[in-house]
Amino acid sequence: MITSLTNGRVKQLVALQEKSHVRNKERLFVAEGIKMFEEAPTDRIREVYLSKGLWEQLGAESRYGSVWEKLAECERQGIKVEQTSEEVFRRISDTRTPQGILFVAEQFSYFPEELLERAGKRWKNGGRPPLFLLTEDIQDPGNLGTMLRTGEGAGVDGVIMSKGTVDVYNPKTIRSTMGSLYRVPFAYTDSLEQVIGLLRERGVLVYAAHLKGEKYFDEIAYEGGSAFLVGNEGKGLKEETAGLADAYLKIPMEGMLESLNAAVAAALLLYQASGYVRKARLLAANS
Amino acid sequence: MITSLTNGRVKQLVALQEKSHVRNKERLFVAEGIKMFEEAPTDRIREVYLSKGLWEQLGAESRYGSVWEKLAECERQGIKVEQTSEEVFRRISDTRTPQGILFVAEQFSYFPEELLERAGKRWKNGGRPPLFLLTEDIQDPGNLGTMLRTGEGAGVDGVIMSKGTVDVYNPKTIRSTMGSLYRVPFAYTDSLEQVIGLLRERGVLVYAAHLKGEKYFDEIAYEGGSAFLVGNEGKGLKEETAGLADAYLKIPMEGMLESLNAAVAAALLLYQASGYVRKARLLAANS
Repeated sequence: MITSLTNGRVKQLVALQEKSHVRNKERLFVAEGIKMFEEAPTDRIREVYLSKGLWEQLGAESRYGSVWEKLAECERQGIKVEQTSEEVFRRISDTRTPQGILFVAEQFSYFPEELLERAGKRWKNGGRPPLFLLTEDIQDPGNLGTMLRTGEGAGVDGVIMSKGTVDVYNPKTIRSTMGSLYRVPFAYTDSLEQVIGLLRERGVLVYAAHLKGEKYFDEIAYEGGSAFLVGNEGKGLKEETAGLADAYLKIPMEGMLESLNAAVAAALLLYQASGYVRKARLLAANS
Repeated sequence: MITSLTNGRVKQLVALQEKSHVRNKERLFVAEGIKMFEEAPTDRIREVYLSKGLWEQLGAESRYGSVWEKLAECERQGIKVEQTSEEVFRRISDTRTPQGILFVAEQFSYFPEELLERAGKRWKNGGRPPLFLLTEDIQDPGNLGTMLRTGEGAGVDGVIMSKGTVDVYNPKTIRSTMGSLYRVPFAYTDSLEQVIGLLRERGVLVYAAHLKGEKYFDEIAYEGGSAFLVGNEGKGLKEETAGLADAYLKIPMEGMLESLNAAVAAALLLYQASGYVRKARLLAANS
């Protein structure tokens, strides 16, 4: 059991929680909580830490059965499972009311090209057309996490982020993904321009949410593949990025509001496109 | 200039920032930042505080012209405008990087009945049908603020909240409204059941976002007035509340996701209904 705040592992865990350059150098991240642990792909997990309190409850309470099983699976696979004192756990946790379980896992990595390739193949084989979210310099970790979560719900083929977008392995982002981090493929890119070029080569239309939009987002026939560009919370899209889009879309805005929350805007666009495709395919199947 | 952290006003401002029972007893709230100040209705403002740093910039930089004018207006109306040291400002501010301006204002208050009445009248006179958001026990201040912001964009007639919903005057909520706090009418209710009864009397259909929904939210003709019930982030709607709805709606969910973020779900529902009405009225006008 780790009981000392000066233990080397404690320092390392705190650094992984707080510093994106440490996470990215080691290609690791830290996730917390029972749900995040249960849903984590076991082959990604490197180390698991439990607070003394949770450890004692685990054996005694049947509602923790599935956590217990997952821990057993980890141990079978040689993954280190370690207990800590309550004080140490509070130190290594990023939350105010820690659930008593956190773990170190290997980062996921995808290339934009492979996400496009996979989506393109499915479309060619008669599946639904590609759907992508492209983010430029999103700064709020909660917004980014919510975008991944909504992306899973809407069925995106990937979230592709500009280098200036906040770190997807930020603890707040991970929490707001509610597990989508494991399931929605994402990639960072040095050049959204290049990604937009690749999308266009594959027949995917790129839409920018923009005040200059001439058409409302809910008056478009999303018949082919769609990718939506969403910009920074305060500044919106850079002019040169918006200029790369095939079309500008407006979201209707009553009152005196200048813009919607970025994650809300992304949700409206993604669900509009996926809903259009779902309804069109349903109509086609019934006709 | 206030320079002492033990000054009585400082203690009072911190209490107003941190404690909802203090805010609600005094019927006051604190809002921060240039945008929130500029957009605030002057007749609501009681006191304004500026950091020494911002005060010095104000006179020197032309980009602060509109702040300067608003401050002059406040002084003409006898509203106290006071300078504080940087240290004091950091103490009274709720943000990590304060903009140097905050103010105390009187709370807004509406009754659910008057919001319904107003929306009903407009409908009767040929305007668009009523649109309401009903929240049950939303806990995250950012989610609630985002709902008000989205509500303004979608054109809601009001956001009606269960007593168990987080305080709308929480500093985090105020920030995420981006000014919608001033413009979207809202009310707390002891009984969502009663409000739902009143809505039904006025011919407004009440929809609950619910996993048991039989229809997708984007396959409904929102021809009349609509109200959407959105539940707590973790637990969803209480069964007895959901049972009061006229219909359950499902939001399609790909992947292994159990639910969307509550503010995202609210946005999809509100924009779907307002978009339906907009398009239907456009069609009618053109035919």
